[in-house]
Amino acid sequence: MFVVMKADANARQVEGVIQVVNEMGLCAHALPGAKRTVIGITGNHSPLDPSRFDRLPGVEEAIQVTKPYKLISLEMRSEKTVVPVGDASIGGDELAVIAGPCAVETREQTFAVAEAVWRGGARFFRGGAYKPRSSPYAFQGLGEDGLKILAEVRERYGLKIVTEALDEHGLDLVERYADVIQIGARNMQNFSLLRRAGRSHLPVILKRGLSATLEEWLLAAEYIMLEGNYNVVLCERGIRTFSDHTRNTLDVAAVPAVRRLSHLPVIIDPSHAAGHNYLVLPLAKAGVAVGADGLIVEVHNSPRQALCDGAQALTLEQFGRMMSEVRAMHGVLEPLAAA
Amino acid sequence: MFVVMKADANARQVEGVIQVVNEMGLCAHALPGAKRTVIGITGNHSPLDPSRFDRLPGVEEAIQVTKPYKLISLEMRSEKTVVPVGDASIGGDELAVIAGPCAVETREQTFAVAEAVWRGGARFFRGGAYKPRSSPYAFQGLGEDGLKILAEVRERYGLKIVTEALDEHGLDLVERYADVIQIGARNMQNFSLLRRAGRSHLPVILKRGLSATLEEWLLAAEYIMLEGNYNVVLCERGIRTFSDHTRNTLDVAAVPAVRRLSHLPVIIDPSHAAGHNYLVLPLAKAGVAVGADGLIVEVHNSPRQALCDGAQALTLEQFGRMMSEVRAMHGVLEPLAAA
Amino acid sequence: MFVVMKADANARQVEGVIQVVNEMGLCAHALPGAKRTVIGITGNHSPLDPSRFDRLPGVEEAIQVTKPYKLISLEMRSEKTVVPVGDASIGGDELAVIAGPCAVETREQTFAVAEAVWRGGARFFRGGAYKPRSSPYAFQGLGEDGLKILAEVRERYGLKIVTEALDEHGLDLVERYADVIQIGARNMQNFSLLRRAGRSHLPVILKRGLSATLEEWLLAAEYIMLEGNYNVVLCERGIRTFSDHTRNTLDVAAVPAVRRLSHLPVIIDPSHAAGHNYLVLPLAKAGVAVGADGLIVEVHNSPRQALCDGAQALTLEQFGRMMSEVRAMHGVLEPLAAA
Amino acid sequence: MFVVMKADANARQVEGVIQVVNEMGLCAHALPGAKRTVIGITGNHSPLDPSRFDRLPGVEEAIQVTKPYKLISLEMRSEKTVVPVGDASIGGDELAVIAGPCAVETREQTFAVAEAVWRGGARFFRGGAYKPRSSPYAFQGLGEDGLKILAEVRERYGLKIVTEALDEHGLDLVERYADVIQIGARNMQNFSLLRRAGRSHLPVILKRGLSATLEEWLLAAEYIMLEGNYNVVLCERGIRTFSDHTRNTLDVAAVPAVRRLSHLPVIIDPSHAAGHNYLVLPLAKAGVAVGADGLIVEVHNSPRQALCDGAQALTLEQFGRMMSEVRAMHGVLEPLAAA
Repeated sequence: MFVVMKADANARQVEGVIQVVNEMGLCAHALPGAKRTVIGITGNHSPLDPSRFDRLPGVEEAIQVTKPYKLISLEMRSEKTVVPVGDASIGGDELAVIAGPCAVETREQTFAVAEAVWRGGARFFRGGAYKPRSSPYAFQGLGEDGLKILAEVRERYGLKIVTEALDEHGLDLVERYADVIQIGARNMQNFSLLRRAGRSHLPVILKRGLSATLEEWLLAAEYIMLEGNYNVVLCERGIRTFSDHTRNTLDVAAVPAVRRLSHLPVIIDPSHAAGHNYLVLPLAKAGVAVGADGLIVEVHNSPRQALCDGAQALTLEQFGRMMSEVRAMHGVLEPLAAA
Repeated sequence: MFVVMKADANARQVEGVIQVVNEMGLCAHALPGAKRTVIGITGNHSPLDPSRFDRLPGVEEAIQVTKPYKLISLEMRSEKTVVPVGDASIGGDELAVIAGPCAVETREQTFAVAEAVWRGGARFFRGGAYKPRSSPYAFQGLGEDGLKILAEVRERYGLKIVTEALDEHGLDLVERYADVIQIGARNMQNFSLLRRAGRSHLPVILKRGLSATLEEWLLAAEYIMLEGNYNVVLCERGIRTFSDHTRNTLDVAAVPAVRRLSHLPVIIDPSHAAGHNYLVLPLAKAGVAVGADGLIVEVHNSPRQALCDGAQALTLEQFGRMMSEVRAMHGVLEPLAAA
Repeated sequence: MFVVMKADANARQVEGVIQVVNEMGLCAHALPGAKRTVIGITGNHSPLDPSRFDRLPGVEEAIQVTKPYKLISLEMRSEKTVVPVGDASIGGDELAVIAGPCAVETREQTFAVAEAVWRGGARFFRGGAYKPRSSPYAFQGLGEDGLKILAEVRERYGLKIVTEALDEHGLDLVERYADVIQIGARNMQNFSLLRRAGRSHLPVILKRGLSATLEEWLLAAEYIMLEGNYNVVLCERGIRTFSDHTRNTLDVAAVPAVRRLSHLPVIIDPSHAAGHNYLVLPLAKAGVAVGADGLIVEVHNSPRQALCDGAQALTLEQFGRMMSEVRAMHGVLEPLAAA
Repeated sequence: MFVVMKADANARQVEGVIQVVNEMGLCAHALPGAKRTVIGITGNHSPLDPSRFDRLPGVEEAIQVTKPYKLISLEMRSEKTVVPVGDASIGGDELAVIAGPCAVETREQTFAVAEAVWRGGARFFRGGAYKPRSSPYAFQGLGEDGLKILAEVRERYGLKIVTEALDEHGLDLVERYADVIQIGARNMQNFSLLRRAGRSHLPVILKRGLSATLEEWLLAAEYIMLEGNYNVVLCERGIRTFSDHTRNTLDVAAVPAVRRLSHLPVIIDPSHAAGHNYLVLPLAKAGVAVGADGLIVEVHNSPRQALCDGAQALTLEQFGRMMSEVRAMHGVLEPLAAA
C-alpha cells in the first residue's frame, strides 16, 4: 500500500502515519518528493484496508499496489531520484561519468588512470579490488590493499570511489573505503548480498544480470530498498544473446523502459557490453542518446598489459575523446528532453 | 581474389582485367572507389594464382581473400558506399529518413501519413503492399493496388518509395512501382529472393534476420552483390532474445561492427525493435548516436485503427518531434565523427 | 469456426455442410477422424454465426475458434494425424526414421549411404539437391541432377525420398522426383513457399525456424493446411541460443508442447541441433523419449570428405548403432505411452 | 599440472609427490582412480616445469594443463566420479532420484510428500528451507524450522536430504541438518558461496546458471573442488531463451557434452525447465535418454495450494508414474550405454 500525503502535510503528520504503520508491526518507507511525501508500507502478508490510513491527518489517499514492486515505482515517487554522493550525484542534470580500470592492479597503474579520469572531468572513479572471475585461476583482485589504493585516489583527486562487493564480508570493507557500492551482474540475485547492501549508508549501483528481465532487475532493487537504502542506481551492462560480435548485447531500450516504471536513475556500462575497445565510444553515445543518467567505463593506461578485460578498456586518449563527445551530445539532448 | 588497380589506371586497363577474368569463365565485379578501382573475382572453386593478374597493365596487386565474404568487405572498397536513389541517397552526409505506415491500408490513410512525412522533411516513404504475417488470418496487404497508391505518393510528394517484396513474383511488381526494394527479416536467408534482388536495377534494403549473426547478414548481402547489384543497404531491426520489455532487442553495436568490416551503409529500424510507440524516439536517437546512415520508422495517422503493428507506430506529431530531435543530434555528431 | 459432425453423420451430410460453406464464399476443410468428421471453415473476415450451421443435418455443434490457429488444432482433429507416404507413414505406431547425407554429392556417395540406411531398416531417405547455404561461395547442391540420383535410390531400395525445396520453382521439381517435401528452418516464414507447398499433393516436413516460437511454427503449418494440404509433419531441429557447445539448442519440450495443441506429427532432427557427431545419438534418444514420431538424421559414408555439415554426420556404423538403440527404446516407451 | 602416478604406485609415493608440491607453496589434489591416482597441482601463477615431478618415485608422467580447468577434467580422473551420500550415491549404476516439494511449507505437507517419495523408491528428498525468490514479497522459506522438518524426514524415511543454501550463514545451517548442499542457478557464480561449499564435508549439487555456458559452469565446479571438496554433482535445469512454451529451455545436450570433458556426475531438473506439470515427465525421460545420472523433481501433495512453483509440481500420483517409466527406460538404456 502507498499512503500519499497531502501537499501541505507537515512532518508531524508524516510521523503520525509512520507510527500507525509501526504499531501494526509493518514497515514504513517515507520518500519525500518535490510536491508531496509518499509512504510505502511493506511487511504485510495480505492486502491492507485503505480505511486504516486514509482518514489520518495529512493523508490525501491510500492506494493498493497493483504491480509486483512498490518502492522502486513511479507511484511511490513520481520524479526521478537524484542519488547524492558527497558533492556529486547521479540522476541529476549532469551526466555522471564513472571511469577507471577493471581492476586495481598497482598503485602506479591506478594513479595513472585516475589522473586521466580527473583531467577528463569525470567525478567518479571505478576500480575492482574484488573481481568476480569465471575462472578460479584468473586474477582475483588485490582485496583490501586495492581498497586502500582507491581511498588514496579519492584523497588526491577528490574522485568518488565506486567499487564492487562480492559478499557480505567484502561489503563491510567496501563500506569502509568507498563512496558507492557496486553489485555486479552475477550477483544481481544474490539476495543476501542485496539485503546487506540495503542496510548500508552508501549508495548502491545494481548491475542488471546477464539474463535478467526488467522485472527481475527492478525486484532486485526492491530488495535493497526494502531494507531502507533508497539510494539505488540501476546499471544496464548488456545481456547474453546469440549475437557474437559483442561480448554482450547492450539493451539500450532498457533505459526508457525503466524510466516508464521507476524513479531510480539508470546508467549504462558500454565496456562490458562491447567487449571490444572500438565499440565503447559508440555504445556510450547510444546510452546518452536514450537518456541514461550516466556511464561507467573501463579505462587503462596500458590495455595490453591489463590483468583483466584489457580488450575492452579505453586508452587514456580515447577516454578524453569520449568525454568531449558525450558532453557535446548531452548538451544538445538535455534541453530537448526537458522540453 | 581482389585485383587492386593503380590509382592512375584507366578505364581500358580495368576493362582488360575484366576480360581476362571473363575468359577464365569467372565473374568480375568492378567497384570504383575514390582513389582506385578494385575488381572482385568470383566464381572460382579453388584459390586463384595471383600471378595471373598482378602483371596485367594498370594492376597494383592481386590479393587473396581471407574472409568468408568478398564484395561487401572494406578490402573491396575502403570508403563507404553511397547508395543513390534518384536525387536522394543513403550512406552520404545526410541522415536518410524512411517513414510511413506498416501497411498501405487505404489511399486516404497513406496520403495522410505521406503528407506528414513530407512536411517533416524525410526523403523516403515506406509502406507495405505485401505483408509477411505470422498468421494466415491476419491482413496480408493490398498487393498491387497498394503499390499503385505508393506510386501516387511519389508522384505527389516526390518521396522515394521503399516497399517490401516477399517473393520473386512480388519483386517483379515492386520493381515496377517502387524506388527501393526491402527484403524483410524473415526472408534474410531466402536465397532465391536475394539472387533475384541481385538482378534488379533498384537498390535493396536488407533487414537483419531475427537470429542472424553479423556474418550471416553480411553473407546475405554478398548473395545480392554477387549477382551484380552493389546498391545494398543493411538494416538492423532488433534481434530475438529473452528480453520481454521490447518486441526485439535493438543491437545498436551492429552498426559500428558492420562499419569495421564493410563499406555498405547501415540503417536502423527502431519501430520493430521497440514494439511500443514510446520507445521509438529513444531508439531512433540511439541509432543516430552509433552512426547509422538512416532510420526507417513506422508512422500512422491513427495508430489505434492500424491494421498492422499499431502499437509501435508513431503518431504524426511524434514523427515531427523525432525529426527535429534526430536532426539536432546528427548535426552535432556528424562533425565529431568526421574529426 | 469448427463444425463438428455427429458420429453417425454420413458423407452426404458432410457434403451438405461443405456446400453451405462454399455458397457463403468461404472455404471448408473436412478432416475425418476416428469418431467423427470436423469441418474447419476459413476465409471469413469476421466471426461467423454458429446458428448458420448447427441445425444442418448431421451437425453435432458449431464452435467458435478461440485460438490463433484452426486447422492444426486438436479441436479440429482430436487424434493424431498419420501422414501416409506410400506404404510407409509418419505419425503412426512405428518410429519414422529419415536418414541420409546432408547433400547429394555423387551417385556413389548417395548409394553407399542409401545401402546402409536401407540395411538399418529406415523407410525414408534424405539428401539435399538444393542446399540453403549461409555463404554464396559454399556448395549449393547438384540441383535436378541430385533429384535424379534420389529417384534412383527410391527405385533401387524402395526408400521414400525426402528432400528440401528452397523456392517455388524448386518445389515444382521436387514434386516430380520426391515423396516428401522438406521446408527448411530458414524458410519457415517464407509464406509464398508455404502456400505453394499447401497446393502440393506431397506431404510436407516443416522445420521450426531458428528463432520461432511454438505459435509461429504452428501458424506456418496453418499456412500450408489452409491451401488444402493436410499432410504436414513438424520438425524440431534446435533453436538459436547463447549456448555454444552445440550448433543449436534442441528444444525437446517442443514435442509434448505441440502434442498438447495439435494433431500433427512431430519429428526431431538431432543432427542440426548437435552440430557434433558424438551428440547425435543421445539427442536422437532424447527425441524418442519425449515421444517424437520420428527422427531425421544425417549420415555419410565419409564424413571428413562431406561437402556440407560433415562434423555432424553419423558414420554408417554409428547409424547402425543408433537404429538398434532407438528401436529398443521405442519398444519400451510406446506401450507406456499408450497405457 | 597433472602428475599421473604409475598404476602400481603406493601410498607413500603419492604422499611424496604431495609433499614436494606443498614445499613449493602449492596445493595438491590427489584423486584416486580405478587404475591409478592423478595429482592435480594448483596455486601456481606461471607454468610449472614437468621435470620437477616426473622423476619422483612412482610418477608416470607430469602433464601440462591445456584447458581452462583442471580438477573437473577427464585428464584428472578418467572414470566417472561416484559421489557417495551415506548408503546411497550419485553417479553410479543406479539412477539417483531426488524428489520433494519446492519449499518446505508445513510438517504435514512435507511428510505427505516424503511418504510418496519414499514409497516411489527414490533415495533422496528435496525441499527448500531458504528460497531465492525474484520478489522480496514472495514466500522466502521457513529457514531453520524448515531444516528441522527435513531432518525429521530423514529420521523417519531414511531419505537423504538435499536442500539449498543461499549464503555462507545458511550453508552453516544446511551442513548441520542436510546430506547434500544445493547451490542454485542464481548463485552459480556466487564465488564466495562456492568457496564455502568447497570447504564443506557434504557433497554439493551445482545447478547451471540461467545463462551460463558449459565452460562457466565447469569452472564454477572447479571453484568448489579447488577448496578440497571433490564431491560435486552438476545439474542442468534449463537455460533462458526466447522460447516461451516452457519456463526455461532444457539443454539436454549438456549431459553428453559435460561427459566428454568431465568426470563429474550430471543430473537433470525437468521441473524448473518445464514450468508446467504436464511437461515434467517427458523431460525427465529425455534426461534419462541422454544418460543423466539422476533427476531432481518437484512433487507436491496439493500443487494448487503450493506456496511456490505449484504449476510445475508433479502430483503424488504423477510422481509414481514417473518413477515406473524412468526405471523402465533406465533398465533398457544402461546395458546399451555400457555395451
